[in-house]
Amino acid sequence: MLENRRLQPPGGTGILAWARHYRRAWLAGDLTAGLVVSVMIIPQSMAYAMLAGLPVQVGLYASLLPLLGYALFGSSMSLSVGPVAVTGLMTATLLAPLAAAGSADYLQLAIWLALLSGLMLFVAGLLRLGFMANFLSHPVISGFISGAAILIVLSQLPYLFGLPRLPEGFSGLPALAAQINWLVAAVGAVCLLALLYARNRLAGHLQRLGLGSVMATLLARLTPILVLALALLASSVLDFAGRGVPVVGSLPAGLPVFSWVTPGLGVLQSLLVPALLISLVSFVESVSIAQSLARRKRQSIEPNQELLGLGAANIGAGLSGGFAVCGGFSRSAVNVEAGANTPLAGVVAAAVIALMLMTIAPLFAQLPLVVLAVVILLAVIPLIDVQSLKRAWRYDRVEGATLLSTALGVLLLGIEGGIVLGICLSIAAQLWRGSRPHVAVVGRVPGKQYFRNTQRHLVEIVPHVLALRIDENIFFANTKAVEQAIYRALGDYPDTREVLLILSAVNHIDGTGLDMLSELSEGLLERDVQVHLAEVKGPLMDQLEGTDWLREQVTEVFPSTDIAFTTLANLQRSVSEADDRKA
Amino acid sequence: MLENRRLQPPGGTGILAWARHYRRAWLAGDLTAGLVVSVMIIPQSMAYAMLAGLPVQVGLYASLLPLLGYALFGSSMSLSVGPVAVTGLMTATLLAPLAAAGSADYLQLAIWLALLSGLMLFVAGLLRLGFMANFLSHPVISGFISGAAILIVLSQLPYLFGLPRLPEGFSGLPALAAQINWLVAAVGAVCLLALLYARNRLAGHLQRLGLGSVMATLLARLTPILVLALALLASSVLDFAGRGVPVVGSLPAGLPVFSWVTPGLGVLQSLLVPALLISLVSFVESVSIAQSLARRKRQSIEPNQELLGLGAANIGAGLSGGFAVCGGFSRSAVNVEAGANTPLAGVVAAAVIALMLMTIAPLFAQLPLVVLAVVILLAVIPLIDVQSLKRAWRYDRVEGATLLSTALGVLLLGIEGGIVLGICLSIAAQLWRGSRPHVAVVGRVPGKQYFRNTQRHLVEIVPHVLALRIDENIFFANTKAVEQAIYRALGDYPDTREVLLILSAVNHIDGTGLDMLSELSEGLLERDVQVHLAEVKGPLMDQLEGTDWLREQVTEVFPSTDIAFTTLANLQRSVSEADDRKA
Repeated sequence: MLENRRLQPPGGTGILAWARHYRRAWLAGDLTAGLVVSVMIIPQSMAYAMLAGLPVQVGLYASLLPLLGYALFGSSMSLSVGPVAVTGLMTATLLAPLAAAGSADYLQLAIWLALLSGLMLFVAGLLRLGFMANFLSHPVISGFISGAAILIVLSQLPYLFGLPRLPEGFSGLPALAAQINWLVAAVGAVCLLALLYARNRLAGHLQRLGLGSVMATLLARLTPILVLALALLASSVLDFAGRGVPVVGSLPAGLPVFSWVTPGLGVLQSLLVPALLISLVSFVESVSIAQSLARRKRQSIEPNQELLGLGAANIGAGLSGGFAVCGGFSRSAVNVEAGANTPLAGVVAAAVIALMLMTIAPLFAQLPLVVLAVVILLAVIPLIDVQSLKRAWRYDRVEGATLLSTALGVLLLGIEGGIVLGICLSIAAQLWRGSRPHVAVVGRVPGKQYFRNTQRHLVEIVPHVLALRIDENIFFANTKAVEQAIYRALGDYPDTREVLLILSAVNHIDGTGLDMLSELSEGLLERDVQVHLAEVKGPLMDQLEGTDWLREQVTEVFPSTDIAFTTLANLQRSVSEADDRKA
Repeated sequence: MLENRRLQPPGGTGILAWARHYRRAWLAGDLTAGLVVSVMIIPQSMAYAMLAGLPVQVGLYASLLPLLGYALFGSSMSLSVGPVAVTGLMTATLLAPLAAAGSADYLQLAIWLALLSGLMLFVAGLLRLGFMANFLSHPVISGFISGAAILIVLSQLPYLFGLPRLPEGFSGLPALAAQINWLVAAVGAVCLLALLYARNRLAGHLQRLGLGSVMATLLARLTPILVLALALLASSVLDFAGRGVPVVGSLPAGLPVFSWVTPGLGVLQSLLVPALLISLVSFVESVSIAQSLARRKRQSIEPNQELLGLGAANIGAGLSGGFAVCGGFSRSAVNVEAGANTPLAGVVAAAVIALMLMTIAPLFAQLPLVVLAVVILLAVIPLIDVQSLKRAWRYDRVEGATLLSTALGVLLLGIEGGIVLGICLSIAAQLWRGSRPHVAVVGRVPGKQYFRNTQRHLVEIVPHVLALRIDENIFFANTKAVEQAIYRALGDYPDTREVLLILSAVNHIDGTGLDMLSELSEGLLERDVQVHLAEVKGPLMDQLEGTDWLREQVTEVFPSTDIAFTTLANLQRSVSEADDRKA
């Protein structure tokens, strides 16, 4: 085990840590993985560029420098960065109001968007703002991804049926049916079936033919490039383009040429919010993928280092004329399966794609776009995560509703609206929960030293002692509710002379809460009811120490409920005796 | 005591509850209070109308129907509603972008604003939205009031020195000095000194002259009307108006004439946010004043009933040509001191003001505006609450900062900006606190059944048992922090075989938290470390019951830390023995 650990690259320890400790034994895995991943991501990168409203080669350009940039700064040994479906969609929808898809302006905006977002990520990394990602809850992330995936599927429908574009409403649908290009639809259907077969069955069939399980899975993973090649062949031989099937068209050979255009201030301003959103989503996505992969290998991920890595990757994407990139789940999973040990695998993949660009890239000109649409479809449909919705709904209706609202928000209000709605809802849900505190009247479990809710358990109580456990931090949103609950309990136990507030679940009391407790205690003292505390935690005690409430209105602070209960029960008895004597 | 209670009106029990149970014994108090309050609020109402940028009689009109409307629905026996400084300021600043102060349009907008805000409050009352007020924390309210008070003082400076208006920046100040009307300043100074004397010393001097304390205080409270009368006399005799002293000018005799102008949709839309803000502030202010007064008399306040009462009051204000009203602190305090038992006191006050309007109102035409400015100054300066800032800062820096930011927000960003900033900051502070959870490694206090932080107390621990108390609800903003704290503790105690999570302070675990706990437990189980829980509260247990985490990854749930600790200590011993035998 120890031996095994030493053989693994460290991860998470700064610039090129993996390179400084590189071992020869890792090389074979990195080379294989680089090769396999490059073959897999060639069609994907082109497809996502199409999704982003950009020429297909831009997707390939975005698969070069980003891999090097991430290798330089990133902390994950497994993450593969590049164009992914969600950033493709975000680029398309965020730039749509600013320029026409396909125009030169649009391409320039996409490049600036990648650069700006890279800069933001890098600076956030330097400022160690990685913790910001914590404010996106799982339901919000899941709802966002599902909503985005549905948007992506909808965006691909025109490509799948050879239509100019989708109608605005349902009324346009019948007219549209007449426009369907059935050759496009047929090519799409064949590709879809072939790829589905490759994904679900091929590995099993290959294993039955005697191949090893790893080899069979890898071959199945590589099928897309074969489907691509066959579609390309069919398209060239049968002249699909001549039959009205939209194809990639001209695709320039060679590496991207670096060119710099300085953006105007107005343009930068309009890109600010889109860049922020893309940064946020890429970071959260990449880190969660990186973490789930690192956990398997017992490696660690440093979120701030990831910010630097993703920042460098996006700056790289911008500089090489590509669009915004982030860590992709399927490409990273293939990377690990194919044996990647370090980001060197990414560097190898970049080299293979560069080589491809310099040699055979122009051959893709005849590739039908419908094939790329099918690649997108297959990649994003699994992202529509109904399972998470069911699970969230079962666990907590509010979380289920948050997930669903975020997804619907993305569909109806767009990317920004959806994310903002989701964040607001998850914060509101948290406040709402805090505003409805559980306050329990507790009694002693017979013969034991612990105490339970009188409404859930058969417990012993002392008539003159009201022991209340407040199950929530006391803060502005729930002070009224806590106050009402205490008064209600006092109404239920009118003989109360001693109120014991058990603060085991109170980690913080804000000023509004303190004011309420002070007024409440004043009212109780006027009725000759004394207030005691039990199980006040250290940090809370530190804060209360200097307050008038604790000094003047709280009679005693007990270390445990048990001691408090026993002491108060006896104390009360002597008070009753005094009353009896008086009577 | 019981007798005393029966003699008091009930409060808080619906429409005209006080009238249905009215007792003759209450009448004298209500009549006196009505008379005293009316005399006190005549100058105030005119002053606040001036503050709102409206003709002074509008302030008097807003002191008629609102008192009746509140008497009909309100639940407080002490609250006196009418024009107050903060709603005056809000009317002025919220309407400033929409029309020129003093124009007929402006007056019409002020009327619609009162009507719309009244409607909102009334509907909110019907929908029982009273709990919404809980989302304004005390630091936000205090900061808002202080900021508004400073704005009000600044707005009165031109009136105090007879200037046309304040300069935009400091550069205009020297030129301004030349424009000061020293007669205005002198009249203001004399009034200020007289009123300060009346407020701080007069009651004492009157008592020394043999008057009873109550009578002396009441007489001192009525001095403003005397000062007003003397100023009026001086102004008429010495022809202040002819010497450039701004005076009230024509003041129509008689009651307001009801007139209805239907607002356009665009106007209503532009008034929506202002009306919402005025409603929110009036509600929060009125309820907190009503509650502090009700507490003294052991009466209760029903927030939803207050919404109805304030709604009716503002609708009344709008219908009688007045501007937005709310409960005022000083007028309510005087109301109580003068013996008010029920809202009948308000009805009496309204009748006195109506009588005044029908008879002597035109006499006020010669009243110098500087006198009203001094009345405002004296009313709002005590609202600048430095004490609250100090107290909040001492208790919690974050709350102090929230208070200060809200006040500065009101000054620099305006009324809306200030409130929104304050609400956002107090929610952010709450999230921020929750995101930094306290996680303590605990051990047994020697010889006792309770457990304390190992870093704060001398406690006993068992090397193979790591008992962790998580002092916060586990939710999206702190899952990473909780995870890191647990891993850090595991690093500190590398011999750990049993992890005991003590959930006494965890009232809720959200889905993101559950995912984290599940992944954490998986990682621990792989290392052959078992996870146990103790002190899971009823409501939390209900929620966890159905989860895979509890079913499959948690080994045991113990009712108390004591039992868990003892059981696990023994369990661990047998595991170690097994290891020894193996070795």
